[in-house]
Amino acid sequence: MMDLPAHLTGLIGQAVGAIDTPALVIDLDAMERNLATMAAFARQHQVRLRPHAKMHKSATLARLQMAAGAVGVCVQKTAEAEALAAHGVSNIYISNQVIAPAKLKRVVALAQQLAALNGQLAIAVDSLEGITRLAAAAHGLSVHLHVLVEIDVGQARCGVHPGPAAVALVQTIARHPQLQFAGLQAYHGRAQHFRTLAERRTAIEQVVSDVRRTVAALQAAGHAVPLVTGAGSGTFLLEAASGVYGELQAGSYLFMDRDYASNEPDPAQPQFEHALFVKSQVISACASHAVVDAGHKSHAIDSGLPAVHGRALDYANGGDEHGIVRGKPLPALGETVWLIPGHCDPTVNLHDHLIGVRGGLQHGTVEQIIRVDARGALT
Amino acid sequence: MMDLPAHLTGLIGQAVGAIDTPALVIDLDAMERNLATMAAFARQHQVRLRPHAKMHKSATLARLQMAAGAVGVCVQKTAEAEALAAHGVSNIYISNQVIAPAKLKRVVALAQQLAALNGQLAIAVDSLEGITRLAAAAHGLSVHLHVLVEIDVGQARCGVHPGPAAVALVQTIARHPQLQFAGLQAYHGRAQHFRTLAERRTAIEQVVSDVRRTVAALQAAGHAVPLVTGAGSGTFLLEAASGVYGELQAGSYLFMDRDYASNEPDPAQPQFEHALFVKSQVISACASHAVVDAGHKSHAIDSGLPAVHGRALDYANGGDEHGIVRGKPLPALGETVWLIPGHCDPTVNLHDHLIGVRGGLQHGTVEQIIRVDARGALT
Repeated sequence: MMDLPAHLTGLIGQAVGAIDTPALVIDLDAMERNLATMAAFARQHQVRLRPHAKMHKSATLARLQMAAGAVGVCVQKTAEAEALAAHGVSNIYISNQVIAPAKLKRVVALAQQLAALNGQLAIAVDSLEGITRLAAAAHGLSVHLHVLVEIDVGQARCGVHPGPAAVALVQTIARHPQLQFAGLQAYHGRAQHFRTLAERRTAIEQVVSDVRRTVAALQAAGHAVPLVTGAGSGTFLLEAASGVYGELQAGSYLFMDRDYASNEPDPAQPQFEHALFVKSQVISACASHAVVDAGHKSHAIDSGLPAVHGRALDYANGGDEHGIVRGKPLPALGETVWLIPGHCDPTVNLHDHLIGVRGGLQHGTVEQIIRVDARGALT
Repeated sequence: MMDLPAHLTGLIGQAVGAIDTPALVIDLDAMERNLATMAAFARQHQVRLRPHAKMHKSATLARLQMAAGAVGVCVQKTAEAEALAAHGVSNIYISNQVIAPAKLKRVVALAQQLAALNGQLAIAVDSLEGITRLAAAAHGLSVHLHVLVEIDVGQARCGVHPGPAAVALVQTIARHPQLQFAGLQAYHGRAQHFRTLAERRTAIEQVVSDVRRTVAALQAAGHAVPLVTGAGSGTFLLEAASGVYGELQAGSYLFMDRDYASNEPDPAQPQFEHALFVKSQVISACASHAVVDAGHKSHAIDSGLPAVHGRALDYANGGDEHGIVRGKPLPALGETVWLIPGHCDPTVNLHDHLIGVRGGLQHGTVEQIIRVDARGALT
């Protein structure tokens, strides 16, 4: 807590009303129920959980997830891995490509640092050039760098084509003694948000078929596939039930986006509660609308605008610093309005701290201030 | 420079190629031309310039603008004012409503602090309740707090109706000895982005008519109006030419959004250059597209996606950490791609530092690292 500003440490033990606005607030009770639900699911389905820490960017929450059974966390950026490692997270997988030689040196240094702590760093690749550069950076490394080959299972972003294209990459990895082939990265991000269950099932059937085809091609070439990792909070039951995925990367489950709530639920998949809120306040009011002090510098809008929590009000974009609230009854000047962000990940990235509240948003008490250690960790 | 991380101070003097990606880079030559163009315009039109520092959130750039003739800067948040004041900016106007009593205490403390430095703090109000709360916080204050009354000139966000409604507010301000009526806040934000010049002219004609009507009502009630302040980078010529505006608040001119470039230019208004870029790098490539390492955690997308600078490539959203680039010829793995952000203000807010380059993006040298002092200053 020593690195927190005084106005935040002073909040601990105070009522929710003392939290200045706008602020990002965690309903700790809801978050812990989400945590327990996902941990129980992973145990029940005998699948490893490696939540994506790109969502919360917090070492405290990563360690909480690992204490509840997660094997480690994923990140997307080298700087995220460094920030979490600096605060005690020792099992990290960069589920993304790193190409810049200077950055690959940092990856290798971090791998050595984590290995010394009995931890582990893994990284994804999707090109021969990427492997060559990684191997060059790892030259002389005394530990194995765990390397996963990313295949494109429908996201149409990074990844090689499923099937034989992956074989050449794994063969190249095998030629470098510092590198160890650790499995396949196979994630279909867009499928998480397909609205109907039927669409999500169809998409993940194709994903699983792509994975099976790739595993078969690798096995035929003499390469065992130690792990298939992927899945998100919208579809993880489908990947878990497929029998081919050994590890789930779902991250949003902990806070639950407003956007995910628009999905038709899968009755067989556990449900999660919204646990992350923007506390805002009315700073201007007239007959037609109220204006709150939270705009898109307080919450990301890539997955749509926030919803107003617990009240029949609509939130419209009022720019960087303002939100326009309409509905009846309108909140009065000074009144608190709670918002549910459309997308947690880039929303958390706008804040330095998350304020953890125990006992609900109405009558609760501030219990904990959680630093967003990897906020702005872009490189 | 003492508060900069070593990997950034080490960049100074190095070639552009040494800047790790993604990073926010200023073309200092272009920025300085924009700075000089706007300063010359304000002198020529005998209008004060008080640029909106919500855009760059940097004390260094605020002081640069003031050295070029600006009287001070605007901000939207108390915490922004505090962050800039902490780094030597002494003339600040919070062009927004503050309602929370705890925050109003901070406003008053800052006013006292700046007055002691021969500086000044001003703030906007748009309600009787707001004035009462402000006066309560300022009780016993030894200096005058400069208060501007915000009128709604078409933005439909904050502000009282133009005309007689403003009179009651000014009368209330006049009853509080710690408060001093300093003028009218009249800004039409949406009009900045109306695409045709005709639309912008029509909107600002209405704005000016609303302002005149309000000034007349105040004068009829015996209240002089010391200042009318407002305008943005899309329309400032129109406000300057109106004869009623004494101060322009344009901020984007310094960096110039991609979005503003979509406006039909006003031949009578000076033009500005893009001076802010996201440096990104290709981390994955296939036959159909390349993937760069800058997604919407690197740049805001509220005003649309970034444009690719200097190349016939399209940028599509690839999520928080990725951008999908299409076109011919596709950039190769590892190649640099420069992006022009859609909206500078929330883009800058995603970064801790701006990297100032002299001599162009191709062959230039890093000259300066500029801290985004008020990044994340939300309250």
